Amino acid sequence: MTDPVLAHLRSDADAILQRLIDYAQIPSVSTDPAYSNGMAQARALLVQRLTDAGFDDVQTIHAGGHPAVFAQWIHATDAPTYLVYGHYDVQPPDPLDKWHSAPFEPQIRNGRLYGRGVSDDKGPASIALEVLFAFLKVEGRLPINIKILLEGEEEIGSASLPKLLRDNANLLRAEAVISADGARWRADLPSVNTGSRGNMAMEVTLKTASKDLHSGRFGGAVPNAAHVLARLVASLHKDDGSVAVPGFYEGIEEVDEALRSQIADLPFDEDSFFAGIGSVAFGEANFSTLERLWLRPTLEINGMGAGYAGEGGKTITPAEAFAKITTRLVPGQKPAEIAQAVRHHLEQACPDSAEMEFRAHDEGNPAYSVPADLPLLHAVEGAIEQALGKKPVRVRVGSTLPLSAMIKEALGMETVTLSFSTADEDFHAPNEFFRLSAIDEGTAAWVALLRSLENS
Amino acid sequence: MTDPVLAHLRSDADAILQRLIDYAQIPSVSTDPAYSNGMAQARALLVQRLTDAGFDDVQTIHAGGHPAVFAQWIHATDAPTYLVYGHYDVQPPDPLDKWHSAPFEPQIRNGRLYGRGVSDDKGPASIALEVLFAFLKVEGRLPINIKILLEGEEEIGSASLPKLLRDNANLLRAEAVISADGARWRADLPSVNTGSRGNMAMEVTLKTASKDLHSGRFGGAVPNAAHVLARLVASLHKDDGSVAVPGFYEGIEEVDEALRSQIADLPFDEDSFFAGIGSVAFGEANFSTLERLWLRPTLEINGMGAGYAGEGGKTITPAEAFAKITTRLVPGQKPAEIAQAVRHHLEQACPDSAEMEFRAHDEGNPAYSVPADLPLLHAVEGAIEQALGKKPVRVRVGSTLPLSAMIKEALGMETVTLSFSTADEDFHAPNEFFRLSAIDEGTAAWVALLRSLENS
Repeated sequence: MTDPVLAHLRSDADAILQRLIDYAQIPSVSTDPAYSNGMAQARALLVQRLTDAGFDDVQTIHAGGHPAVFAQWIHATDAPTYLVYGHYDVQPPDPLDKWHSAPFEPQIRNGRLYGRGVSDDKGPASIALEVLFAFLKVEGRLPINIKILLEGEEEIGSASLPKLLRDNANLLRAEAVISADGARWRADLPSVNTGSRGNMAMEVTLKTASKDLHSGRFGGAVPNAAHVLARLVASLHKDDGSVAVPGFYEGIEEVDEALRSQIADLPFDEDSFFAGIGSVAFGEANFSTLERLWLRPTLEINGMGAGYAGEGGKTITPAEAFAKITTRLVPGQKPAEIAQAVRHHLEQACPDSAEMEFRAHDEGNPAYSVPADLPLLHAVEGAIEQALGKKPVRVRVGSTLPLSAMIKEALGMETVTLSFSTADEDFHAPNEFFRLSAIDEGTAAWVALLRSLENS
Repeated sequence: MTDPVLAHLRSDADAILQRLIDYAQIPSVSTDPAYSNGMAQARALLVQRLTDAGFDDVQTIHAGGHPAVFAQWIHATDAPTYLVYGHYDVQPPDPLDKWHSAPFEPQIRNGRLYGRGVSDDKGPASIALEVLFAFLKVEGRLPINIKILLEGEEEIGSASLPKLLRDNANLLRAEAVISADGARWRADLPSVNTGSRGNMAMEVTLKTASKDLHSGRFGGAVPNAAHVLARLVASLHKDDGSVAVPGFYEGIEEVDEALRSQIADLPFDEDSFFAGIGSVAFGEANFSTLERLWLRPTLEINGMGAGYAGEGGKTITPAEAFAKITTRLVPGQKPAEIAQAVRHHLEQACPDSAEMEFRAHDEGNPAYSVPADLPLLHAVEGAIEQALGKKPVRVRVGSTLPLSAMIKEALGMETVTLSFSTADEDFHAPNEFFRLSAIDEGTAAWVALLRSLENS
């Protein structure tokens, strides 16, 4: 017998798609003040829909930046309470000329909806909301207590989110967080994400003279900022690409052999992975590509420069040089300590002939791992298996999802992601799209999850 | 008793200055086709003045680029023949907004003439021409046979000069070349330049992927072009800044101890030298600053870059990187062999994870040294001593003056410089100036030189 809520969702499919299109038409770009109307419009639409559906305490919460939208339905006596997370802000649409259809005029082509924000995060968040709305409509109640937090600053680093979480700790308190943000590893393989790497961004600048000097008149008798920078950067890694900064790997947990063998069993076509990016496998010895991406920290120069970068040549010895550095961190590494280790290493390596300045761009974010025995994790895995007919594989992401660590830090709550966007959907690039097939898959999984949590 | 030619020059001082101003008003910028009228005007003025003065065979010579102006007076039977070199083209005047007076409206301020080209090379070349014109006017003849070559492509690398020299070898044949181009080490210390370093310009580019990659999604499992470049660049030098490229120092003559002690005796305020450029002494062990600049070769990164260079950060692993390299060479080093050694070293050092491309920008220029026993060198030293009352010190330049090596290669002739511009006169920068005191000093030295060569 078909679940009546799921049956309703299937019969309402056209309207669900239309509501997503209406939502995606709103240009809620958080990074650019020119879009503040779009941000307000998106909040108003969410408040209206949540109110119409029967949620209580629908409100916007401010903590300095763009407000978040909050709502709750907590009438399920004796049932647990979960916090559903999503965000209503989107990436800027630039470069506009690379889009095949206008970013804020969503268009369906080949089973995909194209438009800014459809994959990140309006599509996945709408799936969660539509399921909640359907329960309230069909059954007049939700299987469990639900709090909803829809953030407005995810695309700009969630700067005020920690304060917002702390300021509203009681309001947001729940067993755990179900995040409707994040991307599936692949569209064709059910998976659940059990961890993400942290990050820490830094910059180092060098100065060896008050201005660039003529290489003939001064070359050979003065320090050259480019030479100094190259030596500093080269000192950061060993031959195999592992990080040579003392203390960098300190405190990292030993990689679990069961996890390694589980990762080794994943279907992963390494040749086509590297062919797709025109590159080759390279990295820390004794780890596989997926282990390097998911389980091991890395330190990358994102940009560096010194002297003349134009056409042809210019006979100077550069007086200044810079390198922008980010690390990706794993559990056991603290961003501030990593920045300190990198600074210390560079200061030790920098010769007296150069003045060095070092700064951390921000406070960074630690890595996050879902505890292997977390009930919500097992519930999500079960719901995916029930909805898609196949047990999901456990995967991780090499990128940083600051939300989980922020929530853990501020509220002591764990986060499991149940999102139906996919990593290849160009969500920070032109022609962002969302697979329409994800709507059926996602609503089925969310229905199964809520039912299963009711009985947990 | 005052030399009658010098007496005439002194009485004609105002007219000499006016003729220099008239000449410097002509915008003879060789690099920009928009100035081709100025180039033609400068040639016409020189042809007119040489003809009016009584020179023979006044003509322009073409070899593909901007024509040179040639003239000769070869009626001094039994006297030697010398070729006087100068150039009529100037650097572009940009950036215009940095000039305190218009670059092509020469203005006198504080004993200096300000204007584009006044120091390089219209002032110094005019000194030579005015002396020759004065001899012809006062005495109806020159003490020696003189050929004059005024080039139009010095500021753009003298691309067609080698061909011009070869095509006109007989016309240009002389004992040696007296160059009225080049700069005095200082205005307050008589000196003669006895050598310059050669150069060779190269560029290396690296590619590690088909595009920049997200540092979270790929970092740690792919090569990073910035890391590879840093290791390559760092491998080019030892700790003291000496060059680590195998073969780089091969074939270099041992530095002459007499020359070292002569350089050590030069008055040189090292502290104020480095204070003036906001830098510190750095370079090859066991050599002094002046030795590093004048006697030792160097390899400099002029510019390098990879990845993101804008404000803030960007979480990418760069796919491409480049470094622009120039060397300054000393006698015994061949530019083509140096390029080959650098290429070979980089190819050996480049890991398989990166694709490397290397190219030499041009054929480079070898170093040049005036033979210590060249009669013209001693004649120039004597003339300077006679004119200025002080024996000149022998200095060298760390920069490259391709002319001398080109003439040596094409015609087998040596070159000695007798120029009265000074290294601090901003000749490739805004507010180029020429010390007016150089006119009296320079004309006196040229008169003394021509008289001394008559009797040699």
